[in-house]
Amino acid sequence: MYKLYHFPLSPFCRKVRLVMAEKKIEVELVEERYWEERADFLRLNPGGQVPVLRSDKITLSDSTSICEYLEEKRPEPALLPQGAERRAEVRRLNAWFDDKFYREVTLNLLGERVNKKIMGRGYPDSKNVKAGSSKIKFHIDYMGWLLDRRRWLAGDRMSLADFSAAAQLSCLDYISDVDWNRNELVKEWYAKIKSRPAFRSLLADQLPGFPQPPHYSDLDF
Amino acid sequence: MYKLYHFPLSPFCRKVRLVMAEKKIEVELVEERYWEERADFLRLNPGGQVPVLRSDKITLSDSTSICEYLEEKRPEPALLPQGAERRAEVRRLNAWFDDKFYREVTLNLLGERVNKKIMGRGYPDSKNVKAGSSKIKFHIDYMGWLLDRRRWLAGDRMSLADFSAAAQLSCLDYISDVDWNRNELVKEWYAKIKSRPAFRSLLADQLPGFPQPPHYSDLDF
Repeated sequence: MYKLYHFPLSPFCRKVRLVMAEKKIEVELVEERYWEERADFLRLNPGGQVPVLRSDKITLSDSTSICEYLEEKRPEPALLPQGAERRAEVRRLNAWFDDKFYREVTLNLLGERVNKKIMGRGYPDSKNVKAGSSKIKFHIDYMGWLLDRRRWLAGDRMSLADFSAAAQLSCLDYISDVDWNRNELVKEWYAKIKSRPAFRSLLADQLPGFPQPPHYSDLDF
Repeated sequence: MYKLYHFPLSPFCRKVRLVMAEKKIEVELVEERYWEERADFLRLNPGGQVPVLRSDKITLSDSTSICEYLEEKRPEPALLPQGAERRAEVRRLNAWFDDKFYREVTLNLLGERVNKKIMGRGYPDSKNVKAGSSKIKFHIDYMGWLLDRRRWLAGDRMSLADFSAAAQLSCLDYISDVDWNRNELVKEWYAKIKSRPAFRSLLADQLPGFPQPPHYSDLDF
């Protein structure tokens, strides 16, 4: 059985958890306070980040390599479509959320409001929080633009791109930082993905000191 | 024929250029001053970053999706190995250099010394330069550790991971920010990859205002 070293409000861990649940791959979750730089953990991943996926045979890190690995080992249901062009679009958007959305939005909001406190690294910097609150609007509008042209973010079928996006947004939703009224299509898309069985484990997450807001696990938010 | 919108000292563009040259895929290079946010360019990539790869049929962005696409369309020579575990290791290291090395080292050195000047964004911040100069040592040591166990960074065959690493290091070598005497194995590895025909176009790059140092294009540096 797989073991996933994770942290509940890490969007990259959530992406892997969603992919594993969607593919019905059993996994034991092990919470890792990665910022404490435990020596045994650094031996698993010298990069010092979660997620790390382990089994008897493998130790993998980096959420995208893990998801590509899982896609190769358990191709059904497919989270990368047929056709090199379509796969490139899924991977582009996966990188968009992992990199651009994460740095412009998640780090500025979740990083400031939650991670700093948990890690004992001081108080939120209001300049960063403001930047994140402003940038999330652009990203929601872009998602709306995509969803006006496609059923799912990267095409007509649900893909890894949807899970990357939902992983980021679900962390921000936990701290009530998503304005779901900004775009009806984005809200509908999130309602669809949130109601999947794969999402249940995320909706049960609890972070000590940061109680879940009532709408967070409500499928009819 | 493909067109690549690029900037000479962008490590992500260099990675794609190396991959295309290694696979002998013809490409026309179009220099894009992406920070000027040209409207026509933003239509190609709303993320506003280079590289962007175009043909009659496709417009792709994000260097990793582009490289995965090229690997699928032109599998020979293979830059991802056989076997899901080995591919995961290549992808982990590709992400290591694109993300961790880039943010800890390249942004702090090239970003401060070169990009700020070209983009008219002020003077180098010496705190960041110092952080980059310190972090590059850790990365070179880690590469040395890998190369002590393997012929190439991710295994016994050259792969995308080697090109990701060489793309970052070659940009820093252009501004003489790599201490090649720190680790003999890393120096040997770079000499091997630098002498490949695929590397030639990178060694011919010239950036106005930043003359090439003599060792940069010397295969016997």
